[in-house]
Amino acid sequence: MLGFDFEEKRIKQEITKLGAKRVLLQMPEGLKCGALAIISADHCYGACDIALSEAEGLGVDLIVHFGHAKMVKHEPVPTIYVEARATVTLDKAVEQSLPLLSSYTSIGLATSVQHLQILNIAREILTYAGKKVIVGDSGQIAYPGQVSGCNYSNAKSIANEVEAFLFIGGGMFHALGIALSTSKPTFIADPYDNRAYPINVEAQKILKQRFAIIQEAKNAKNYGIFVGLKPGQKHLDNALHMKELAEKNGKVTYLLAAREINPETLLEFPSIDAYVNTACPRVSLEATGKFQKPVLTINEFKVVCGEYSWEIMLKKGLFEN
Amino acid sequence: MLGFDFEEKRIKQEITKLGAKRVLLQMPEGLKCGALAIISADHCYGACDIALSEAEGLGVDLIVHFGHAKMVKHEPVPTIYVEARATVTLDKAVEQSLPLLSSYTSIGLATSVQHLQILNIAREILTYAGKKVIVGDSGQIAYPGQVSGCNYSNAKSIANEVEAFLFIGGGMFHALGIALSTSKPTFIADPYDNRAYPINVEAQKILKQRFAIIQEAKNAKNYGIFVGLKPGQKHLDNALHMKELAEKNGKVTYLLAAREINPETLLEFPSIDAYVNTACPRVSLEATGKFQKPVLTINEFKVVCGEYSWEIMLKKGLFEN
Repeated sequence: MLGFDFEEKRIKQEITKLGAKRVLLQMPEGLKCGALAIISADHCYGACDIALSEAEGLGVDLIVHFGHAKMVKHEPVPTIYVEARATVTLDKAVEQSLPLLSSYTSIGLATSVQHLQILNIAREILTYAGKKVIVGDSGQIAYPGQVSGCNYSNAKSIANEVEAFLFIGGGMFHALGIALSTSKPTFIADPYDNRAYPINVEAQKILKQRFAIIQEAKNAKNYGIFVGLKPGQKHLDNALHMKELAEKNGKVTYLLAAREINPETLLEFPSIDAYVNTACPRVSLEATGKFQKPVLTINEFKVVCGEYSWEIMLKKGLFEN
Repeated sequence: MLGFDFEEKRIKQEITKLGAKRVLLQMPEGLKCGALAIISADHCYGACDIALSEAEGLGVDLIVHFGHAKMVKHEPVPTIYVEARATVTLDKAVEQSLPLLSSYTSIGLATSVQHLQILNIAREILTYAGKKVIVGDSGQIAYPGQVSGCNYSNAKSIANEVEAFLFIGGGMFHALGIALSTSKPTFIADPYDNRAYPINVEAQKILKQRFAIIQEAKNAKNYGIFVGLKPGQKHLDNALHMKELAEKNGKVTYLLAAREINPETLLEFPSIDAYVNTACPRVSLEATGKFQKPVLTINEFKVVCGEYSWEIMLKKGLFEN
């Protein structure tokens, strides 16, 4: 795990400050500081997935959560977030993006938490190249310009002011989220591969799949409505609202509480025709081909129930509420 | 799910008595009684796995847990256990066991919770055939004669008084547990297949595998010590004791908290040589071939550390403390 800043000094200070005797680390990393370190070995997909009940059950005094910025409003156990900022250089990747952005004047910039500190480098290079650069600040996520797997509010807040988005970071995951949330041309400047590339072909492919899945779900007689059990994925009110909506449309519903929603989870309920996922909206999108039945986001289900048209839903965002 | 008694009447009475508005069902089954039913869609492997923190997080008034007898001492949310007793006939399977038991006079009887009500039928048939029949009652599990995946105290409590065990039920899982916990000849009378068969060849195979794995684990430089996160699998004191024992033997240790321990969990820690599993001891045994590294039970780890000989450990039980 070289190339990331694990802020060992700050962690040690916090342990001393709290007099913590037991510390839960949500990411594999040894730590010596007089406190008993317990490493969380479970999957961890985001700050939504913070091991709060686990920490309480283990009598832990401090959670050290690595790799994500704070998302849940209140932690019953003292928690520090070590965002693991990446120590990479960005110049080459952003320079590579310039030819791709040649037909756009105003560019929205966004990034994941690991690369926030190099957002200004991208801004400078783009400004120097004559672009108008805008960084969104919706107030609904930890930092300006930040996007997370399920929160593109910063990108959406400036979507009307920009012609295209440039995402700083590795992989397609977050950039796809921007494209699907804003319907704008979206490009990636990848500081790991030192290259830039567009993401809209992939986004279009996902949109076609989702359109087909919504059509299929319209024929379902009954729906399983998933309620997430992870701290930042527990939206029982949304689930109850979806249940009401489904029943108003003559559908039978079952409320299903789940920690993780994966293709195996669905196999337990062979008589359920389709699902609404109120937990992690990205699960529906990432594993589209792997689920044997339609697993819809909240907004997609509103299309099924006639509350939204497909076009309105795209404006609202495929997976954001 | 025909062939099991789901006690719908008792559930409805309990809902009325508690005035429960939200009910968490830990097993797929519809229920209408004025209360909102939420079905737990997560894996559930035993009464150790009861969804307590999940129920609290969902604001549930009552948990209905299907298929297992009570195991945890105290539930912070009112809980009823619907044991789902099997509606099967047993005579033929027990009669088939008589030739297998011909050389034994005293027989220990045991079964899983689903078949407790037919244990007396087996007792009568065996007694009529001239056998001395003993049913154990250790006081450490819900019912006399009952065994569960990790609790064979009833069988162990009579192991010195019987020559062989007859297990009533389907599959090898529980009978293997009896054979491994008591080292006695063990037979299954399966009321689903209407047949009886011995289990000791399979038990011997597992013992050979475990012996080899213990030898392999002796070469480990470091150990991951798993602490379970499920209510009935959380034994932090045991884990701390194992950590101490390992360190006394010059091994480096890491405490790992996990909800589920499976081959994928191990892949997250490529630099750990071997594991001690203080959560569900059956996981170590059932998935032996699937784990890439040794995953030892507590008693097996005591052999590694020289606290027990192999023979003493077999007497204590391969996976019971």
